[in-house]
Amino acid sequence: MKRVRVRLRALEDRSYPICIGAGILHRLPRELARLCPAARYAVVTDARVARLYGRALRRDLRRRGLHADLIAFPAGERYKTRRTKERVEDALVRLGHGRDSAILALGGGVVGDLAGFVAATYQRGIPYVQIPTTLLAMLDASVGGKTAIDHPAGKNLIGAFHQPRAVWADVSVLRTLPARQLRSGLAEAVKHAAVADLGLLKFLDRRGADLRALSPRALERLVERNCRIKAAVVMRDERESGFRQILNFGHTVAHALETAAGYRLLHGEAVAIGMAVEATLSERLGGLSAGGRDRLLCLLESLGLPGRLPRRLDPRRVLAATYTDKKARLGRPLYALPRRLGHPPAWNGRPVRPVEDRQVLQALRDLLS
Amino acid sequence: MKRVRVRLRALEDRSYPICIGAGILHRLPRELARLCPAARYAVVTDARVARLYGRALRRDLRRRGLHADLIAFPAGERYKTRRTKERVEDALVRLGHGRDSAILALGGGVVGDLAGFVAATYQRGIPYVQIPTTLLAMLDASVGGKTAIDHPAGKNLIGAFHQPRAVWADVSVLRTLPARQLRSGLAEAVKHAAVADLGLLKFLDRRGADLRALSPRALERLVERNCRIKAAVVMRDERESGFRQILNFGHTVAHALETAAGYRLLHGEAVAIGMAVEATLSERLGGLSAGGRDRLLCLLESLGLPGRLPRRLDPRRVLAATYTDKKARLGRPLYALPRRLGHPPAWNGRPVRPVEDRQVLQALRDLLS
Repeated sequence: MKRVRVRLRALEDRSYPICIGAGILHRLPRELARLCPAARYAVVTDARVARLYGRALRRDLRRRGLHADLIAFPAGERYKTRRTKERVEDALVRLGHGRDSAILALGGGVVGDLAGFVAATYQRGIPYVQIPTTLLAMLDASVGGKTAIDHPAGKNLIGAFHQPRAVWADVSVLRTLPARQLRSGLAEAVKHAAVADLGLLKFLDRRGADLRALSPRALERLVERNCRIKAAVVMRDERESGFRQILNFGHTVAHALETAAGYRLLHGEAVAIGMAVEATLSERLGGLSAGGRDRLLCLLESLGLPGRLPRRLDPRRVLAATYTDKKARLGRPLYALPRRLGHPPAWNGRPVRPVEDRQVLQALRDLLS
Repeated sequence: MKRVRVRLRALEDRSYPICIGAGILHRLPRELARLCPAARYAVVTDARVARLYGRALRRDLRRRGLHADLIAFPAGERYKTRRTKERVEDALVRLGHGRDSAILALGGGVVGDLAGFVAATYQRGIPYVQIPTTLLAMLDASVGGKTAIDHPAGKNLIGAFHQPRAVWADVSVLRTLPARQLRSGLAEAVKHAAVADLGLLKFLDRRGADLRALSPRALERLVERNCRIKAAVVMRDERESGFRQILNFGHTVAHALETAAGYRLLHGEAVAIGMAVEATLSERLGGLSAGGRDRLLCLLESLGLPGRLPRRLDPRRVLAATYTDKKARLGRPLYALPRRLGHPPAWNGRPVRPVEDRQVLQALRDLLS
């Protein structure tokens, strides 16, 4: 098992381990007393993951004499809502959970975001452990302490920063993940590589097929490497006031696509298209070389990720949706555009910059299917 | 103007000033750029305070060229709900507020708790300033960073710790506060005195009439002294894991009363009755002397505060309601019972202790009207 430790600022009590391995899920119950001691545990998950792993986890917890409940909500981003949060909270109340309870967030990014946000505000905050079951959540969502629910006006509009006590990533569970979801997860790895790690870019070039074939060693290494990148960035900037914005590469367009396309795209797919659009933008603005942009687009294609806008999506609608992004300051959406692959975006010393509407529109049009 | 500074742990950026004075509300707009810089401000308040002070504050903000909106919800604890929080959030979205906005929480404890909680989770947290307009909020609710909404199963069940950038307490606004509310606020001052400051107890004995007659000097001194006590306790224990529990004196019973009596009691009234019950408990358990208990009950009476349970309230219902208190660990409600007036509760080195049901029931019965 590999371990990465995230330390935030000077507060030792807010650092936490990320444990990565193949077949480690059944070992979690015996580690919990140390990782996240609590009087009671509530496994919060979605209906699909409850069937696959949730019931077994509850059983394993109970076998070790731990008090464990299972709270499941319907699967899908469209359930990442205030209503679902309320239902989970109501279940916690009904089952008698108090300030001495802890949540085990078992699932993909939706579960992690929602269950983490429940943990952030239940009784003004209870501890939780992230148990990501998608590649995307392992690489990205479970590091950084961002929790949230969606609002009709935009994704993740309501949320909190709440660091987990631990992240427990068992890459074996990825064998039940649909291939489309697995590919979608690789998009965040491409993003990390593009803004921080040329070596990871080469690893993805070389081991893309092994990753898609679920090689445990390749997956462990991928997850570890990505967690290290994310953790390093988060440690440098816990509250996303500055440097962490480099991780928004592809995301200004991706969030707009998700808003405009009504969640028909997976998040990683939207990020892949977003990176293609933003790499194109970067090239137009004198950032990336044509070769750099093309290398990124080829990597996306070789990993089975989309690099073009879905048909029938009006670029003007996508542009309009960038203005509801919560990172828009003073009404101007900002873009984290790398200038060299593998290096943090920097424009006049800042990781993000605004871009003229017509430039964005042109890049979107260039990439229409 | 008096200033108290709250510093939390080692994090300098989370310390904030508490500014106290008579007639200082109109000076806030010119101080905001320094206290809480933001691109836009949203004054969040209730309908009653909006009429009295909210519109004038918005006008004063706009006169200084600041972007200011006013968001008001109906007055009363029964509006401290998820629905109200959603409506305030929806208004913020509709009015175009982003991560660079700040909230001005203008009102009593309900407004402070709810608007503070909105600030804690809007776009994963935006800054806010507490502008308390009740004595209770000035003395207590605006220090410590506790924000929350109520849940049908209990008060403040959903919330977060979110420190304000500043507290701005203008004691002149208390002249529009109903006398019953003013007295209710004095209950928290009695609590602070009982667990931390014998000098404050004497001040309340001596200046009670001046306080009820709204002497600005007496009020300023009262607010300052109480903020210092609360700030000292909070600084020692930001997350309420230990020492801060001394501030729960009277509150285990008070929260149960509020649950059982359906919010017909003001919070301070419930706290006054709660202190009378818990002082009686302390005496029975060998803590307070009979003289100490009587002195406390006399002070409550001289301040016009209730010291007995409302008629027709079943003590068994109150006892049952103590078990839904969110501070109950492993199902046993804990009590912060002072052993000597003016000194922090300490039982076997801990600020709180469990008490047998029959003892609680007996104390409740002793204090039936």
